[in-house]
Amino acid sequence: MIVRDAPRAIDLIFAIRGSILPRIAPRLLALMVFAALMVWLDRRTDILPEAGALGFTVFGIALSLFLGFRNNAAYDRWWEARKLWGGLLADMRSLAREAEVFVRDDALRLSLLRTARAFLHLHRANLRRRPDDALARSHAGALADAPHPPDAALDAMAALVKRGAAGGTIDSFGQRALAERLGSMALQQAGCERIATTPLPYVYSLLIYRTTWLFCLLLPLALVGPAGWLTPLFVGIVGYVFFGLAEVTEELSHPFGETPNGLPLDAICRAAEISLAQHLGEEAPEPLEPKDYFLS
Amino acid sequence: MIVRDAPRAIDLIFAIRGSILPRIAPRLLALMVFAALMVWLDRRTDILPEAGALGFTVFGIALSLFLGFRNNAAYDRWWEARKLWGGLLADMRSLAREAEVFVRDDALRLSLLRTARAFLHLHRANLRRRPDDALARSHAGALADAPHPPDAALDAMAALVKRGAAGGTIDSFGQRALAERLGSMALQQAGCERIATTPLPYVYSLLIYRTTWLFCLLLPLALVGPAGWLTPLFVGIVGYVFFGLAEVTEELSHPFGETPNGLPLDAICRAAEISLAQHLGEEAPEPLEPKDYFLS
Amino acid sequence: MIVRDAPRAIDLIFAIRGSILPRIAPRLLALMVFAALMVWLDRRTDILPEAGALGFTVFGIALSLFLGFRNNAAYDRWWEARKLWGGLLADMRSLAREAEVFVRDDALRLSLLRTARAFLHLHRANLRRRPDDALARSHAGALADAPHPPDAALDAMAALVKRGAAGGTIDSFGQRALAERLGSMALQQAGCERIATTPLPYVYSLLIYRTTWLFCLLLPLALVGPAGWLTPLFVGIVGYVFFGLAEVTEELSHPFGETPNGLPLDAICRAAEISLAQHLGEEAPEPLEPKDYFLS
Amino acid sequence: MIVRDAPRAIDLIFAIRGSILPRIAPRLLALMVFAALMVWLDRRTDILPEAGALGFTVFGIALSLFLGFRNNAAYDRWWEARKLWGGLLADMRSLAREAEVFVRDDALRLSLLRTARAFLHLHRANLRRRPDDALARSHAGALADAPHPPDAALDAMAALVKRGAAGGTIDSFGQRALAERLGSMALQQAGCERIATTPLPYVYSLLIYRTTWLFCLLLPLALVGPAGWLTPLFVGIVGYVFFGLAEVTEELSHPFGETPNGLPLDAICRAAEISLAQHLGEEAPEPLEPKDYFLS
Amino acid sequence: MIVRDAPRAIDLIFAIRGSILPRIAPRLLALMVFAALMVWLDRRTDILPEAGALGFTVFGIALSLFLGFRNNAAYDRWWEARKLWGGLLADMRSLAREAEVFVRDDALRLSLLRTARAFLHLHRANLRRRPDDALARSHAGALADAPHPPDAALDAMAALVKRGAAGGTIDSFGQRALAERLGSMALQQAGCERIATTPLPYVYSLLIYRTTWLFCLLLPLALVGPAGWLTPLFVGIVGYVFFGLAEVTEELSHPFGETPNGLPLDAICRAAEISLAQHLGEEAPEPLEPKDYFLS
Repeated sequence: MIVRDAPRAIDLIFAIRGSILPRIAPRLLALMVFAALMVWLDRRTDILPEAGALGFTVFGIALSLFLGFRNNAAYDRWWEARKLWGGLLADMRSLAREAEVFVRDDALRLSLLRTARAFLHLHRANLRRRPDDALARSHAGALADAPHPPDAALDAMAALVKRGAAGGTIDSFGQRALAERLGSMALQQAGCERIATTPLPYVYSLLIYRTTWLFCLLLPLALVGPAGWLTPLFVGIVGYVFFGLAEVTEELSHPFGETPNGLPLDAICRAAEISLAQHLGEEAPEPLEPKDYFLS
Repeated sequence: MIVRDAPRAIDLIFAIRGSILPRIAPRLLALMVFAALMVWLDRRTDILPEAGALGFTVFGIALSLFLGFRNNAAYDRWWEARKLWGGLLADMRSLAREAEVFVRDDALRLSLLRTARAFLHLHRANLRRRPDDALARSHAGALADAPHPPDAALDAMAALVKRGAAGGTIDSFGQRALAERLGSMALQQAGCERIATTPLPYVYSLLIYRTTWLFCLLLPLALVGPAGWLTPLFVGIVGYVFFGLAEVTEELSHPFGETPNGLPLDAICRAAEISLAQHLGEEAPEPLEPKDYFLS
Repeated sequence: MIVRDAPRAIDLIFAIRGSILPRIAPRLLALMVFAALMVWLDRRTDILPEAGALGFTVFGIALSLFLGFRNNAAYDRWWEARKLWGGLLADMRSLAREAEVFVRDDALRLSLLRTARAFLHLHRANLRRRPDDALARSHAGALADAPHPPDAALDAMAALVKRGAAGGTIDSFGQRALAERLGSMALQQAGCERIATTPLPYVYSLLIYRTTWLFCLLLPLALVGPAGWLTPLFVGIVGYVFFGLAEVTEELSHPFGETPNGLPLDAICRAAEISLAQHLGEEAPEPLEPKDYFLS
Repeated sequence: MIVRDAPRAIDLIFAIRGSILPRIAPRLLALMVFAALMVWLDRRTDILPEAGALGFTVFGIALSLFLGFRNNAAYDRWWEARKLWGGLLADMRSLAREAEVFVRDDALRLSLLRTARAFLHLHRANLRRRPDDALARSHAGALADAPHPPDAALDAMAALVKRGAAGGTIDSFGQRALAERLGSMALQQAGCERIATTPLPYVYSLLIYRTTWLFCLLLPLALVGPAGWLTPLFVGIVGYVFFGLAEVTEELSHPFGETPNGLPLDAICRAAEISLAQHLGEEAPEPLEPKDYFLS
Repeated sequence: MIVRDAPRAIDLIFAIRGSILPRIAPRLLALMVFAALMVWLDRRTDILPEAGALGFTVFGIALSLFLGFRNNAAYDRWWEARKLWGGLLADMRSLAREAEVFVRDDALRLSLLRTARAFLHLHRANLRRRPDDALARSHAGALADAPHPPDAALDAMAALVKRGAAGGTIDSFGQRALAERLGSMALQQAGCERIATTPLPYVYSLLIYRTTWLFCLLLPLALVGPAGWLTPLFVGIVGYVFFGLAEVTEELSHPFGETPNGLPLDAICRAAEISLAQHLGEEAPEPLEPKDYFLS
């Protein structure tokens, strides 16, 4: 995730880090060259038919609404993903507190918290499709090779609760409290999994990219008359707005990717580690800081 | 559900799988031929009245907003359905863990989990209106012939909890925990049923298809003057955007259908089986993979 | 509720059942006759001032947005009402299961479920303002004459729980579980009551109908010049879109009415009866089927 | 709250009660006179510059979107406030039932319910900023003089639960159940307080009124040419739509006010009294009826 | 937060406090001077190309929709933050009540409430990034120096519950109730942290400021012809609407800042103190009042 203050004047012109421009620049250039060719063709020959504004107004508004919808949906996915991770962070902290209250066996309690920490890292590695994530493996050990690692970590925690119940160090109230906490973590984990495995319907992407291209390629027909040599500029700007939004949307709709707009899962895991440290009797690590405005 | 990466340049032109184009192509062709006839008529005779742009701008914007609303509503249904299945997946996993903690009779525990797995398949078959689903029947046995099979499966689970309570292998805390879990599953099951049995109001579909046809059929009157022989092209594009969106919407609003944009219920059921396998002492099956980009 | 598949070509032209057209036809006809008069007047005299397009574009967009907002709000009410009834259905089923687990007195259990069934019918009759609903009375007996019948039914259920507690057939855990279930039913019941007693603010209806009429009556001034004798057609279409949407909205915002778009409360009550039948040792009735596409 | 059926033809023209027109009439009149002056000036002199339509189209659309946003936000506040009160009503009823089940001391139970009723009235008086509300004082006695009366009422209820626990007439399960019910009431009470004390950001109001005035005052510049003496009419209509919406929004965003669109808190309190009456052994009062279409 | 009534006529012209105008005035002035230069250039030379309206209409609508989206997202953040603080306030009050019911050791109960109060202040100081907040330090003592102060306060509360459990003054039901309350507070605290640490995606800000500048700088090309010397005025107004909205959005999206539209955290903390005072046996402080319309 890019962490920067609101852009100042100078950033508006030069900011590259966090901008979508580099990614769409080739497309915009192609569009502008094409538009320039159209103007040249129009000036030299009489081939080009002229299209009235009506079609483009309606088309443009429909396209804007459609892009707006997809942008909303993508942002909602991104923000819901962030909420789920915020919820997991709260769950980790509450688990640590409930373990203090309800578990009367310190070794068991520490095992429980360590497994919880492993769960969080396995979950992160799973969402980012990194089965060999070194950090996760260092925390998780054998759990990392289960068919579904984060699920296996939660299973291991349930087994610890069972052991505590059998050994009399967790009473019935504690079992209920910890089982509910595990249920909450499982729900949020499944929520993240849902977002990761269910992309926005592909048909939307196809529809949107196809119509955006059609719009930008046909636009010169309507502009060449009234706007003349300004046509490439306008086509470039319209392309910037529409393709820019489409690309941002694409990126935000995959909130767990390691892209400039992906969520800072590493930083959230670190925040959980800091909170757990005291309960584990360990030294709290430093919070992660953004590097070159980027927080991983 | 179609599982593909963001479309590349080549897909934009040729992608058929996951595209809505094949379904609406006949309509678009008819519209374009009609529009061409209108242009020809306009060139040959003087019959055709000309309509100003104003009516179409307002009409077009109203139609866009209306399509946008219906699209939102359909997508919300689709995404809510996905959330409910994600919740069921989490419930299955949490049930397995809570059974470990609270059920002190292994045979009973295994029965409970197997019935839960049967419930999920019966629920899937019920939503897809397949009373004779072989897979569901293989898991569910006689339950599949109940008046409401998934409901009967949950009843069977409650009966198991009752047996455990009577036999002393599930204490009061466990009864509460498992009854709450069953309540959560029933709620999500009823949510899916609600989506499956309550389509978007029919009056919307009628209103939208009627106005879209009217718009596309009248559009040549406004375009024939300024756009000439480009009219069929423009009518085709406008028809593509509007009918394309209407069809996508129709499909997404039935999220349990086995259409290209239907939810991958088979894959979710498989994910639940994988998670349950360990608790049942069985070998975990492989996750389902998409075939020809399609995940069933 | 109208239950039909997506409209086919033939339905688009002839479908009456479920269409809003019959209700607004007189208005549209009046508008079109008025518009034709305006064209005739314009052709014969010079009285008519001409209005530019600008005012109508802005007016039309503002009106579209406003109608769109009201439509959203009405659909949300309709869908929330459906969710609440879906939740009640799940509650009825969960109540039956929890009664199996927690009530150790079969006569009491059966009383509880029968009162729950009576509650659902009383709630339905209450929402539809039918104090003399025969079906509800057949299930509810004296409860139907209480000041607030569904509320009285819930009170009667609480009294049964109290009796079970006093008699030792419902333990403390069961009291908690059943009290929570009653709380959940009361919450959903109050939610339905809220929707039924709090319509959309009247000021919106007034504002929207007034502006829609103004728009449609003034529109000929702008169209008469560019569109000539097509004016009545365009006015009719614009009226169809705007008044059609306004009427649909009006109907959806009263989800408990027995209108074509009202919710199928009878069918949902029947679904609950089917689920309860097994627990009551009765034969399950058949599900309700739509008659002439209408599910009551 | 105004309670009327959907407006009939005659209401559209004459309805005053519930209409926003009286409040904005002076403004509209001023605008129309100003517009007429501009037309007169344009006809007599050549001073007036003419402005093209472009600026107004974009300005008008931006303004519509902005008004639409504010309207959404205000309606959401209003509807959330109604939900919270619906939730409180359900809480009152559930509290009465839970008291039946869990409190084994009738005098204590009656005290609890009476304090709950006092809480509701104190909460109503607090939201409406009426510290000397006679009805609330008659129910609440000394509690009405606490620094935060509704909060004090909840404190008093907690004290009663504590007394019952100490006296052995409320067991641990009952303490939990009643404490959770109090927690739910406190949450809904705080939600109402949040809405009452946190208006929509003032900067929005300023921005919206300023731009609406600017738009309406400049509009004649664009209309005077094409629309001539129709200009005042159009300006009046545009003003009606924009100012009307702005005023409705203003009113809805304060849902606890005693305005025509304020929530009927008196009627909801009465509904709670009716439900509590039976549990208190009192006669149920009549429901409140609207007077001159207004339900207080 | 600015606390003012709906703006009166006089405020519309002169209100500065709470207005966004001062912040964007330099930009607007620059834009207007630039526009005037363009008009002057157009009158004197023939250099300036003229651009048709089409491009600007589509661009303007796309920009409006985009600004509208960002505004929605920012307002949702602001309102969610307010909800979370409202929830914390309710939690504080419920905690105080539950402590009365469940804690049978007055010294412990007072410690618990004092730590809760410290938590709230530490949380406030943490969100506002004021590690040396004097008020928070006066309440929190050593806790203020922990790696994560509000988290440490919650840990301290859990330790108190543990002590009460060990000492027999909090029974199992009380442990569960208080642990759940702590879990709720942790969840809301993490929600606030999420909003504070996860700004709106930077790419949106960049995209929006860049396109707004482009739009305003190019607009004179389209207006200079039809609007002449009114061009600077129109450009100024369009700039006012677009930049004004962008700035408001920027501010609302940081709801914990001490800006005119930031949330009144001091006042909410004070409200919690008032509610806790009675439970602590202290005198309730006065509520905070706005100073010069500003509530901190």
